Amino acid sequence: MPDDEATPPLDELMRAIEAEDRSAVSALAEEMHYADLAQAYQELDEEKHHLFLKTIGPAKAADMLVELPDSLIEEALDAFSPSELKILFRELSDDDRVDILQDVGEEARLRFLGLLGPEDEELTRSLLKYEHDTAGGRMTTRIGRVFANQTVKQAVDMLRRSQESTETLSRIFVVDQKGRLIGKLRFRDLAFNTWDTPVRDIMREIGPERVLATADQEEAANMLLKYDLIALPVVDEFDHLLGLITHDDAMEIMQEESTEDIEKIAGIGGEQSEETYLNTTILTQFRRRAGWLTGLAFVSILSGYVMMRFGSILSEVFLLALFLPMVVAAGGNTGGQASTMVIRAMSLGEIDHDATWQVAWRELRTGLFLGLLLGSCMALFTVVLLPFFHFDLPAGMTLAKVAIAVAVALTTQVTSATFLGSLLPLGARAVRLDPAVVSAPAIAAIVDVSGMLIYFTVARAILGL
Amino acid sequence: MPDDEATPPLDELMRAIEAEDRSAVSALAEEMHYADLAQAYQELDEEKHHLFLKTIGPAKAADMLVELPDSLIEEALDAFSPSELKILFRELSDDDRVDILQDVGEEARLRFLGLLGPEDEELTRSLLKYEHDTAGGRMTTRIGRVFANQTVKQAVDMLRRSQESTETLSRIFVVDQKGRLIGKLRFRDLAFNTWDTPVRDIMREIGPERVLATADQEEAANMLLKYDLIALPVVDEFDHLLGLITHDDAMEIMQEESTEDIEKIAGIGGEQSEETYLNTTILTQFRRRAGWLTGLAFVSILSGYVMMRFGSILSEVFLLALFLPMVVAAGGNTGGQASTMVIRAMSLGEIDHDATWQVAWRELRTGLFLGLLLGSCMALFTVVLLPFFHFDLPAGMTLAKVAIAVAVALTTQVTSATFLGSLLPLGARAVRLDPAVVSAPAIAAIVDVSGMLIYFTVARAILGL
Repeated sequence: MPDDEATPPLDELMRAIEAEDRSAVSALAEEMHYADLAQAYQELDEEKHHLFLKTIGPAKAADMLVELPDSLIEEALDAFSPSELKILFRELSDDDRVDILQDVGEEARLRFLGLLGPEDEELTRSLLKYEHDTAGGRMTTRIGRVFANQTVKQAVDMLRRSQESTETLSRIFVVDQKGRLIGKLRFRDLAFNTWDTPVRDIMREIGPERVLATADQEEAANMLLKYDLIALPVVDEFDHLLGLITHDDAMEIMQEESTEDIEKIAGIGGEQSEETYLNTTILTQFRRRAGWLTGLAFVSILSGYVMMRFGSILSEVFLLALFLPMVVAAGGNTGGQASTMVIRAMSLGEIDHDATWQVAWRELRTGLFLGLLLGSCMALFTVVLLPFFHFDLPAGMTLAKVAIAVAVALTTQVTSATFLGSLLPLGARAVRLDPAVVSAPAIAAIVDVSGMLIYFTVARAILGL
Repeated sequence: MPDDEATPPLDELMRAIEAEDRSAVSALAEEMHYADLAQAYQELDEEKHHLFLKTIGPAKAADMLVELPDSLIEEALDAFSPSELKILFRELSDDDRVDILQDVGEEARLRFLGLLGPEDEELTRSLLKYEHDTAGGRMTTRIGRVFANQTVKQAVDMLRRSQESTETLSRIFVVDQKGRLIGKLRFRDLAFNTWDTPVRDIMREIGPERVLATADQEEAANMLLKYDLIALPVVDEFDHLLGLITHDDAMEIMQEESTEDIEKIAGIGGEQSEETYLNTTILTQFRRRAGWLTGLAFVSILSGYVMMRFGSILSEVFLLALFLPMVVAAGGNTGGQASTMVIRAMSLGEIDHDATWQVAWRELRTGLFLGLLLGSCMALFTVVLLPFFHFDLPAGMTLAKVAIAVAVALTTQVTSATFLGSLLPLGARAVRLDPAVVSAPAIAAIVDVSGMLIYFTVARAILGL
């Protein structure tokens, strides 16, 4: 894992801001990448934000704003006057403008929409219709688009006119007269052909690589990854080209969705924010973790109840206490492994609905093998090593008998926990929940209870208690 | 999360292969994207692989091969004759060729290297020097490169000559006479300027956006993400331009690294393979999970030992058993949350070495607040709800006393487990281990032991047992 070495210009900028040296700040910011400016902004004390924004000005601030966590957006916009905001919003690409407007309150959104030119306002309002986490909500409409029946010269002239308002000319898309997507081009295909070549003759046809505007953003990102695309066309149900998801959006989506999965699996709730770990307040951290923790604590009382009811067995055969935490914990560990595997595979689009029973059957067998392995280890441990410790056993009880009871309980617990760990995320999806809501701690809490019941029941039956 | 709907051409292809209809397979494959061909290949029975590869031919197979999991590469290459392999390797880009040669055995690698032309062989050997998971190991050397002192016309002529061997012209890099990276261009910058403009005048300078060939691949991917790049230049220590990491490589790297983190956190060992979940054998799954499970089972016996030693307390005050599993589990849950948060933040490059104590201090406070919350909940539960159940208590003991003992033990356990959960990944990094080796189950196993000790010690002290 990389260390983010602080780049010297960043340090210099921070010192200039602390010293309130406006001309130095302005000169340094001119040279720096907006991602680095955003990093500097987040490291600043809040009272310096205003000075920083005003010094770099609305045009430079626009690009930086896109890189800031959602929660800092509205405060930053408030630093500017309406006429500065007009400049700022004009500087933003259509998809970034929409992202930013989605991060501010309803009242502010309406106020900011009023500052846009009529054309931009209409476009922005139409994009705001799509949910933030859909392909439509993430797409840019500023795309290189030419018609199939144009010549290379006509196409180049058209692109030249729209040059400034286009996000990427790395991929140019070809539509028919009705605006339906039929092919794509690279800029060099135009440059390396004669002026009168028809676009239709040099375009490449597009296969399945497109996504519906209403599709989940994760589907779009997975498709960009699968087909190694720089930009994925977004279409409506009639295949009209609406916009593009670009490679950098896809990377952000993947990073967000992975972090979200990781956090949910660990039982951390709430929205995954764009905030970095160190920029999140402790209160937010507390809130996101407290929910699951409290809920699961009450579930664990069920385990305690089972233990209290069967506790007399432990005082009859003290040795049984030695294995109780292990049997219980083994279920939580293996159940958590199984659910994690299945959740990640679902996120990557590897498990479709038809495969549900195939997955369950795989995990049932994997669980059984793991259970047999652990059971045998512990049985061996009991008969080979424990005799050296001279534990007191009740009359008629042997270490061999205890070994059998532990092995049977452990195998049952591990098999059932693995099976359950794989089934719960699949079940969550079947009822249209995000599979990742089935966190590893939740599975552990459930199989803790079943583990206690299994252990005491098996011990009673086999040891005749 | 998306469902991978089977696309109709894929079904058609599968049927054609089953029927051994070579001309239909060939025609369908011609139309399909190589990522879809790779998917079809993996869904086929093994005995059909040979037929499929021979039918689509080495040129088409080359692109498909790149998308296959590592373990299938060598078998697929063996389907072709030496003369077919020459065609196949010529078809591959330099970085893909290196990737593929890294996936086969030593003997096969030497044999395949002998099939390359002298120029390709030398290039491939020089790239094979870099570790697979470094920037140098992932880069392509087929880049658009022009000199600062050329005119636009000279630059375009040079690019036109190298067009076919260049992976992307979306970004063109500018070097000085010594090959040192100094700027970049987009193709359209050349196209929209007059022939005699010097490249130096229209290039944009490059800031910190470059990576050393020996740097970790994750560092390269994070930089592409941070700076929204299509391609990141890879340089040596003297800033000579060696190659590029492209956006699609970066996405793959991020996806692999995220999956690796997720699996490690869940206590799943071994190399993260490129295999999909359903294509992994049960034996592989078993092996990757068994290691941690078995190790942790023996750690859990320590918990059992503590329980056995202090077990008499439970038979004196049965009620204490009700809270034991909860106190223990709460530590595992909160410790796992803390380590997951910290591991993910480190992966994303958000925590540098200087921040170690800042993180530990944050988590200590978060843990304390979570502990106080849980402790209060359980104390309230004990004094408000438990009186309705009429539990037997020894003489002189009150529910209020039990409530205090539980609250104190729980707060101590949660605070220490959270603190430990954040410290262990930081400590792993300090001794140059991957922080993600500190899996959530490992933390749970450790704090299970400490939880038992805390609970029994506190109960003894407060209840005077």
